Amino acid sequence: MQSVIKGLLQKNGSKIVLLVMDGLGGLPYKGPEGAFAGKTELEAAHTPNLDRLSGASACGMHLPVGAGITPGSGPGHLGLFGYDPLKWEIGRGILEAVGLGLDVKKTDVAIRCNYATLEDNVITDRRAGRPSTEKMRKVTELLQKEIPEIDGVKFIFGPGMEHRFAVIMRFPEALTPEAAMVNDSDPQMEGKAPLPLIPKHPKAERTAAIAAKFINKVEEILKGGHPQNYTLVRGFSTHPRMPSLLEAYGLRALAIASYPMYRGLARLIGMEAPDFEGSFDEEIEYMKHNWDSYDFFFIHFKKTDSYGEDGNFAEKVKKIEEVDGALPSILALKPEALIITGDHSTPAVMKGHSWHPVPVMLHAPYVLGGLTEGFSERQCLKGELGIIPSVSLMALALANAGRLKKFGS
Amino acid sequence: MQSVIKGLLQKNGSKIVLLVMDGLGGLPYKGPEGAFAGKTELEAAHTPNLDRLSGASACGMHLPVGAGITPGSGPGHLGLFGYDPLKWEIGRGILEAVGLGLDVKKTDVAIRCNYATLEDNVITDRRAGRPSTEKMRKVTELLQKEIPEIDGVKFIFGPGMEHRFAVIMRFPEALTPEAAMVNDSDPQMEGKAPLPLIPKHPKAERTAAIAAKFINKVEEILKGGHPQNYTLVRGFSTHPRMPSLLEAYGLRALAIASYPMYRGLARLIGMEAPDFEGSFDEEIEYMKHNWDSYDFFFIHFKKTDSYGEDGNFAEKVKKIEEVDGALPSILALKPEALIITGDHSTPAVMKGHSWHPVPVMLHAPYVLGGLTEGFSERQCLKGELGIIPSVSLMALALANAGRLKKFGS
Repeated sequence: MQSVIKGLLQKNGSKIVLLVMDGLGGLPYKGPEGAFAGKTELEAAHTPNLDRLSGASACGMHLPVGAGITPGSGPGHLGLFGYDPLKWEIGRGILEAVGLGLDVKKTDVAIRCNYATLEDNVITDRRAGRPSTEKMRKVTELLQKEIPEIDGVKFIFGPGMEHRFAVIMRFPEALTPEAAMVNDSDPQMEGKAPLPLIPKHPKAERTAAIAAKFINKVEEILKGGHPQNYTLVRGFSTHPRMPSLLEAYGLRALAIASYPMYRGLARLIGMEAPDFEGSFDEEIEYMKHNWDSYDFFFIHFKKTDSYGEDGNFAEKVKKIEEVDGALPSILALKPEALIITGDHSTPAVMKGHSWHPVPVMLHAPYVLGGLTEGFSERQCLKGELGIIPSVSLMALALANAGRLKKFGS
Repeated sequence: MQSVIKGLLQKNGSKIVLLVMDGLGGLPYKGPEGAFAGKTELEAAHTPNLDRLSGASACGMHLPVGAGITPGSGPGHLGLFGYDPLKWEIGRGILEAVGLGLDVKKTDVAIRCNYATLEDNVITDRRAGRPSTEKMRKVTELLQKEIPEIDGVKFIFGPGMEHRFAVIMRFPEALTPEAAMVNDSDPQMEGKAPLPLIPKHPKAERTAAIAAKFINKVEEILKGGHPQNYTLVRGFSTHPRMPSLLEAYGLRALAIASYPMYRGLARLIGMEAPDFEGSFDEEIEYMKHNWDSYDFFFIHFKKTDSYGEDGNFAEKVKKIEEVDGALPSILALKPEALIITGDHSTPAVMKGHSWHPVPVMLHAPYVLGGLTEGFSERQCLKGELGIIPSVSLMALALANAGRLKKFGS
C-alpha cells in the first residue's frame, strides 16, 4: 500500500499534526465503587475539549500490529508513522541505542550490553549486582575513552539504567543486515559460560571478530572491578533502512518528544528530532515556532503510558486532562489534519502495554462526525473509522490534508 | 501471523474454553407475526445467562473465510482453531474419512467412495439405487474383510450413509501431497464410462495403480449384486500436515464432541478427542474431570446446526436455550478465556450453511464490555471486536489468557 500511496502524492502547503498520548488506550477501573467505577481512563477524565472535537472528527479504533498482539513502543510508533510493523522490524540493539539517545546510521551495527559478573569463565550474575546508574555511567565513560575504535571501527557508547548500556560499532562503509548476523553472547542463564560469537553469514565475520575483541578489551579494563567485571552482548542489528517520511509520504517532518527513544525512532525515518526537553505546553510552543518549516508534526506525550505502567489510574486520568487543557493551542494553529491517539493501550488495570485497539480521532474538514458523544474507547467504537490497522492512519491524514491524488480515473 | 504468534508464546497455567454452537448465526424469522417475528434465532431465544455474560465480554462478529463465502464444517472449525482456512485446505477424501470416524495418519491417502451401478462399462446409476445405510454397512464390512491390503498398502473402510463410504489407503511410509495427485474416477454423469485413474505426479503412480486394483477387486466381489455392483472414487488426498495446536499455539488441547467429524477435525491438529458420546451436560462434566490435564478445551454442540439445516426455527431456538441453561456450570470452572460462538451461520430460514458472519463473545478479565444488551447478531455488531476474521479469535484468546509476550520493545 505504501507504494500505491507514493504514486498518488501531491504537494500542497497543508499541515498534519500527529499527537500521540503514549499508551492512551485503557480498560474499565476495577476498584471499589466510586467516580471511576466501570470507566476507562478516558471515560473517567474530564475532557471537554477532546469530547467536543470528537463530534467534529472521524473517530474509530486502530490496531497496531494485529489481533491479540501487544506492541512495544517501536512497532506502536512505526504503525502510526505509516510503516507496517510486521514488515519493518527494528532490531533490539538499534532500539536500545536510539532509546539511549544515540544516533544510528546506515554504517552501524548496534548492540545491547549488560555489565555482568564473570568468575572462572562462568557468568555468576547477568546484572553485575544491579549497580547504580550513576556508578555505571562513569564506567561507561571510561570505556568510551579507552575504546574509541577497534580495527578501524569506531565505538560509540550509550550509558543506560543500572547495568545496561548500548554500543554502536560504526564501520567505514554502509552495511546490509547480514553484517549483524551474530548470535548473543548472553547465555540467558547464570552458571554458564558466555557464548562465543559466531557469524552466521560471511558478511558478519568482521563484526563478530571485532565484537569479540571489544568484549576482551572490556574484560581487561574492568579487571578487579568485581562484580562489574564483564559485559554480555545481544541484539546485533543494523539500521532498518526504511524509506524516510519524505521519500514515502512526501513529508518534511518534525518530531517533538522529551524522551530519547521517541526522538530516536523518529530519526530512523528521517524526521528532524531536536533534543527537546520541556513541558507539553512548551512542546506545542515549539511546534508553533517551527510551523512554517515542516509539513508533519509528531508531538509525543509520555506520561499517560508511565502512569498506566505504574497502575496509577488516577494520575493517568489527570495526564489525559492535561492534554485536553492544551488542545485549544494546537487547534489555534489550524492544521489541515489533526490525529489524536496513542501508540498502543496501557490500561492502568494491567500495569503494562496491552493488545487492545487504541481510540483515535482525526479532525479535518471533510469527515462525517456526529457519531460520538465524547472521546473514549466505547465512543470511538461507534465512529466512522471502524477498527483499522494503525498504518491506515497516515493515508487518511494525507487524504484529509489534500495530499493524495485520485487512484485511476 | 501464525509465525509471529509462535514467536511470542509463553506458558502459564491458564485455561481457554472454546464453546462452539454449530451453525449458531441466524437470520430473522419470516413466518406470520408471532413471538419470532423479525427476530433471529438468538434474538428469539430466552438466554438470560448468555445475555448477562455478553455485558462482561468482548463481543463482535467473526467471518470464517471471507465476505460472501459460505464455509463447510471443515473451514469453519479450522478458522476457530486459528488456522487460516484459505491456507490449510483439507482434502475431500480426508474430510470424508474423519467425518466417518476414521483416524487419519501422515502415511495415508483417503478417498470418498460411492457404490454405483455399472452396466457394459457404463455408469447407469451413480448412487446405486440409493440403498439403505444398513444394507450397505454390511457390504462395506464384507469389503473390509476381503480387501485388508493390496501390495503392502493397508485398506481401512468407513461405512457411510446410503451409498457412501470412505477408504483409507495406509502406506508403509509417510507421504507428501503429491502422492494423492490422482483424478476422480467418477465421471459426474450417468451414461459414461468410469474415468481411468491417471497419476499427475510420479509420486502418485503407486497410489493410482493400487487404487485401480482396489476398484477391480470391489467389482469382482460385488459381481451379481446389481444395482450395487461397482464403486466410484474421488477426492484423493493426504493428511493436511498442519502444525498441531501444541506446535502452533503451545496448547495441550482436548476436544469434546459427540459427532465423529468434529473429533476427526480436532485430531488433525493434534487435539485429544476421545470417542465421547453424551448430552451437553455430560460434555461439560467430562471437561471438568479433565480440567487439570489440558490448556484448551473445544466443546462442540451440534444440534443448533441440525435444526438450522432442517429449517426448524423453533427447535434451533430451544437448543440455544439448552446451552444457555448449562452456561453456569462452564463459568464455575473459571477459565481465563471463554469463547462462545459458532463455526458458521445456519439460518433456519435458509435451511443450510450461509456466508453471514457469526456472533461471538470472548469472556475474560481484560475486556471493555458494556456495549451489548444481549447475545445476538445485532447486539454483537455493537461490540468491541468489530467484524474480524475467525482466525483472529485464537490470538485474542491467547492474549486474554496471558499466553503472549510483547511484540518488539
